[in-house]
Amino acid sequence: MKHSFRNDYSELAHPDVLSLLSSVGSKQFEGYGNDEYSIRARELIKGKIEKPSADVHFISGGTQANAVVISSILRPHEAVIACESGHICTYETGAIEATGHKICAVKSESGKLCADDIIGIVSSHNGEHMVKPRLVFISQSAETGAVYKKAELSALSDCCKANGLILYIDGARLGAGINSRFCDLSYADFANTADVFYIGGTKNGAMFGEAVVICNDTLKEDFRYHMKQKGALLAKGASIGLQFEALFESGLYDRLAVHANETALKLAEGIGELGYKFLYKPETNQIFPIFPNKIADKLHTLYDFLNWRQMGEETAVRLVTSWNAEEGMVNEFLGDLKGLYLPRPVGIDY
Amino acid sequence: MKHSFRNDYSELAHPDVLSLLSSVGSKQFEGYGNDEYSIRARELIKGKIEKPSADVHFISGGTQANAVVISSILRPHEAVIACESGHICTYETGAIEATGHKICAVKSESGKLCADDIIGIVSSHNGEHMVKPRLVFISQSAETGAVYKKAELSALSDCCKANGLILYIDGARLGAGINSRFCDLSYADFANTADVFYIGGTKNGAMFGEAVVICNDTLKEDFRYHMKQKGALLAKGASIGLQFEALFESGLYDRLAVHANETALKLAEGIGELGYKFLYKPETNQIFPIFPNKIADKLHTLYDFLNWRQMGEETAVRLVTSWNAEEGMVNEFLGDLKGLYLPRPVGIDY
Amino acid sequence: MKHSFRNDYSELAHPDVLSLLSSVGSKQFEGYGNDEYSIRARELIKGKIEKPSADVHFISGGTQANAVVISSILRPHEAVIACESGHICTYETGAIEATGHKICAVKSESGKLCADDIIGIVSSHNGEHMVKPRLVFISQSAETGAVYKKAELSALSDCCKANGLILYIDGARLGAGINSRFCDLSYADFANTADVFYIGGTKNGAMFGEAVVICNDTLKEDFRYHMKQKGALLAKGASIGLQFEALFESGLYDRLAVHANETALKLAEGIGELGYKFLYKPETNQIFPIFPNKIADKLHTLYDFLNWRQMGEETAVRLVTSWNAEEGMVNEFLGDLKGLYLPRPVGIDY
Amino acid sequence: MKHSFRNDYSELAHPDVLSLLSSVGSKQFEGYGNDEYSIRARELIKGKIEKPSADVHFISGGTQANAVVISSILRPHEAVIACESGHICTYETGAIEATGHKICAVKSESGKLCADDIIGIVSSHNGEHMVKPRLVFISQSAETGAVYKKAELSALSDCCKANGLILYIDGARLGAGINSRFCDLSYADFANTADVFYIGGTKNGAMFGEAVVICNDTLKEDFRYHMKQKGALLAKGASIGLQFEALFESGLYDRLAVHANETALKLAEGIGELGYKFLYKPETNQIFPIFPNKIADKLHTLYDFLNWRQMGEETAVRLVTSWNAEEGMVNEFLGDLKGLYLPRPVGIDY
Repeated sequence: MKHSFRNDYSELAHPDVLSLLSSVGSKQFEGYGNDEYSIRARELIKGKIEKPSADVHFISGGTQANAVVISSILRPHEAVIACESGHICTYETGAIEATGHKICAVKSESGKLCADDIIGIVSSHNGEHMVKPRLVFISQSAETGAVYKKAELSALSDCCKANGLILYIDGARLGAGINSRFCDLSYADFANTADVFYIGGTKNGAMFGEAVVICNDTLKEDFRYHMKQKGALLAKGASIGLQFEALFESGLYDRLAVHANETALKLAEGIGELGYKFLYKPETNQIFPIFPNKIADKLHTLYDFLNWRQMGEETAVRLVTSWNAEEGMVNEFLGDLKGLYLPRPVGIDY
Repeated sequence: MKHSFRNDYSELAHPDVLSLLSSVGSKQFEGYGNDEYSIRARELIKGKIEKPSADVHFISGGTQANAVVISSILRPHEAVIACESGHICTYETGAIEATGHKICAVKSESGKLCADDIIGIVSSHNGEHMVKPRLVFISQSAETGAVYKKAELSALSDCCKANGLILYIDGARLGAGINSRFCDLSYADFANTADVFYIGGTKNGAMFGEAVVICNDTLKEDFRYHMKQKGALLAKGASIGLQFEALFESGLYDRLAVHANETALKLAEGIGELGYKFLYKPETNQIFPIFPNKIADKLHTLYDFLNWRQMGEETAVRLVTSWNAEEGMVNEFLGDLKGLYLPRPVGIDY
Repeated sequence: MKHSFRNDYSELAHPDVLSLLSSVGSKQFEGYGNDEYSIRARELIKGKIEKPSADVHFISGGTQANAVVISSILRPHEAVIACESGHICTYETGAIEATGHKICAVKSESGKLCADDIIGIVSSHNGEHMVKPRLVFISQSAETGAVYKKAELSALSDCCKANGLILYIDGARLGAGINSRFCDLSYADFANTADVFYIGGTKNGAMFGEAVVICNDTLKEDFRYHMKQKGALLAKGASIGLQFEALFESGLYDRLAVHANETALKLAEGIGELGYKFLYKPETNQIFPIFPNKIADKLHTLYDFLNWRQMGEETAVRLVTSWNAEEGMVNEFLGDLKGLYLPRPVGIDY
Repeated sequence: MKHSFRNDYSELAHPDVLSLLSSVGSKQFEGYGNDEYSIRARELIKGKIEKPSADVHFISGGTQANAVVISSILRPHEAVIACESGHICTYETGAIEATGHKICAVKSESGKLCADDIIGIVSSHNGEHMVKPRLVFISQSAETGAVYKKAELSALSDCCKANGLILYIDGARLGAGINSRFCDLSYADFANTADVFYIGGTKNGAMFGEAVVICNDTLKEDFRYHMKQKGALLAKGASIGLQFEALFESGLYDRLAVHANETALKLAEGIGELGYKFLYKPETNQIFPIFPNKIADKLHTLYDFLNWRQMGEETAVRLVTSWNAEEGMVNEFLGDLKGLYLPRPVGIDY
């Protein structure tokens, strides 16, 4: 296997992150995230999002962040609205349902949710024989690599407010989302629009760790109880605090995301030039080219990546680039792809 | 504050652990604990416990390990038997109950459970109006610093087998337990006695991470599903695998535990020589001297540690030493203690 | 309002049921369903289904029966496969999710599930990042009034066995299903095919109560614990036992279902003769005629019934007849319908 | 077996209750408790408790009422404070824990809770590593037959208010409690003191059914969702409404409770006159005489009742009288007891 385009969490951590972890030596610190590093990291994040009143909590992974946040907010009969492709609907082994809550899933080809989707669910749930939708879950960037634009997010937020719904944004790839050249949203925009969101570390240079940001005051109370109960309050919380300090003290987080995005777009451009189409428009570090099955099969012998959707004689695959992806990988892949096959040539039946 | 004796997780990690983490550079690896480092760490652990058939899983913390293990085993109506002082009963914010299960708590001054305790619970639970006890939870070393001896563990195990109960051992401080000079149990003994146990990393040199060991074949199926659902399957599982590799490849784990224990016993010896008694006999790296309240108060101005039990004019405190505790800390504490006060002098009213 | 066709649970209970309840006077009996009446009712049911080895338990309602049965079977990571129109997916306020389990919902226009649906779900759920489908939920008769035929049920059962899945049948309207002239299945067929099913009393003459029948030996253990924990073990279990005795001692249950079905079919025939179509083929006591919106609106001023689906200028409505529906109600409805409007006349735009 | 003193739910229902159920014939009514009978029963109850603003909901049994009420109020990390002898702690198969909540159990010889007990729990639970006590559970009458007096209830209520705790009263035997000659509390007192309580029907003349009364406005929202989700919203809610109408339209509920209490006290008086002592002072329809084991054994051959506590050579037993207990039963029991043995005769070793 030459390289992996399977995901953006295949490398342990950015050297600056590891180096800050190694630097603290045997200094004694407070447990459970009350240490000086975590405090500093929280301040850096609150500065970045321009929301001094926000609460910031560090949690080891995304599935856990989603489950802790959502279960801390909902009463037993309340439900989540999310896209069918939303991570909580598919690849978290029913973590939300395990806390007792139904997810009302909406079909969405783009992987993004819109106000009409929300209204459809809200209006079809009337009365005590059905769950009560209460929280809207979206991901930025979405599982399809797409980004919400400012107008889209505002419309969602307005719809949520009008319907008494909480807006929660899964930011496992918030770095890629915000730093996409197709995204006109700032960190402050997220802080001003979402009730809660998280800034993902694992998929953008950290060894592990996500920063949950609670913007809505009414959702702050006792959040650490929920973390502890769900096993999300690490004894050595400093281990995450230090990583976010490294990522946010001088812009590393954004630089890594830009790099991952741009590498993916370079790859997408090259693939497009070879005549291939994409399932979704490439916007961030996840791209979904469509290859004839035979080509996809051959590429699998050289690279590690995911088949995303089987479409008869073609396969949409997912290629992901990380903060650490190198231009050489892109060129090698494009070279191999070029050599493999002439795509869709006129008059030849393959 | 001169030093902290508050706990054994105040320092980030042993240098060898951090150094191995830093050594892997930007190498790409498999996600979710299927990487080469985790595989190697599992083999090291299975060698250490002399149980090649065991399943080993890495989980980020103890509360999470307890919740994942216990909820993976019990049916909804089944319950846990544990000491009132057991960590799951007190300091895990109801994490076990949050997965739906009652804990039948047993009063135990020593912090250790015995067969009679189990039989008492089992025999008083008869029929469908009560929960059905199904799993016995003990900690080695216990929350009182005490260690189970071979005969005690055998008796518990026999009782569990006779009553169809699963024996689960919380090993947050298994290193301290096994390496106590008062403990005649080997790693293999645990693997041969417990149905499941975990080897705690967080409190013995790791930055975070516990190694859950499933010895009973009937409990192995689908364990990774439970991990994922509870947010315990880290994307970069290698981050824990690497740490356990560092701890178990050349005996570091045991050396660190021996050091922590011996430092605590030195401290205990010194305190005893000054005439103070202990709430529990010092056996591992947690010791519980009893000081007059005034002395405890003054010590609190110099050192960080926990008050354990208020006993009228005296306070039993908890002093914990870590793998990193230095002889200087012990001497300094003893010096200060000596200087503070002549304990319990005859004829003087204090 | 002249009459209600809203549902089949608008009348308290059949006179024979009430009369048996009133007959026992102040006789003392055992609690929690261990009384003589419940025992006799269980024997009657086991005779009817020709399965002496079955376990029969009485539960007060359908939502409770579904939740107790399903949560007693599944481990935390396991999921249910059901039609989107399945009662557990829609009108039980997330009762299954509240016990921690995801429902993998399948779109089905007919309201019935087929083997291909199951295989589709099973084959797309691979590995620990997703829930593990484990139980198949169907309803006989279905929420669309349709009945499974013998060949369909066999195919489902074979598919379940081949894939290690439990087959559970919600029999809220089992009476209507089995006694449909379109159904070639006997009680024994259900007992021989399903792992668990229930025989609904509430919707077929009882005041309340459903009889859960566990056919698969491996699912029997400790079922009463689950009932008790979920509040489903009535102190005076005799109150349900007596009702099932009344329903099953001399064929009342079947007679009531036949009556409800035949009344509905008479109504359907009349509606069809007036030129109206149906959303689903009428097979049991729930029928779904499609009326122009204006006609539906007018009918709502005279009768109580449910709008089922809005279809532009037409509405599919649901008309339900109970064991107590009278021929006069049918004639009155048809007369009113006839008088209201000439449906779909040629050349007239309405 | 001559008679059963095992409990107060051995007879199906009072004739007036059955007769009202039988009287409604085949009249169609609204489902899910929105029928005219339930509405009238609610009004009767609100009149009785002199609290027009209260919400009244009918639920089929006590375990279910407790689970629905408590889980509707608590957030995931919040816990219940209750006596160890409280029904939710012992005989409900972990129903509260199954909804995710720990019960902080307090030892209480009397079976009653006091403000000091509450303060003890609250003050020992500080911070996010422990559950957060939020709801106080008491039973009137208590599981020991004891009744709370006005001063006791006020003190509890004041303590709850001062500590931000919800006061919930399990009234499975509220009739016996309020109508005890030792109780100075009215229905209105309960409505003015408790945040929520329930009026038990099952143990006082109903076939089944409990009336949950929500007094605190902040706890009312969406309660029917919780009922439905937990399977507690009966399709034919009228079946409970009718029973409470029968019980409350002309004082039947109180008359039955007075009868049960007075019969028990007559029995207690007779037993006392024979020289036997009681474990708890007889106050309601549950009494706990202490018999030598041999006498208890012989009585078991004649009557059905429960052994409550083994005390060496003596056994405290529980004798319960129902609304239907007859004076003849009392006399027969006392006669048999007298005939059996001369209790504790001087100089004779038995």
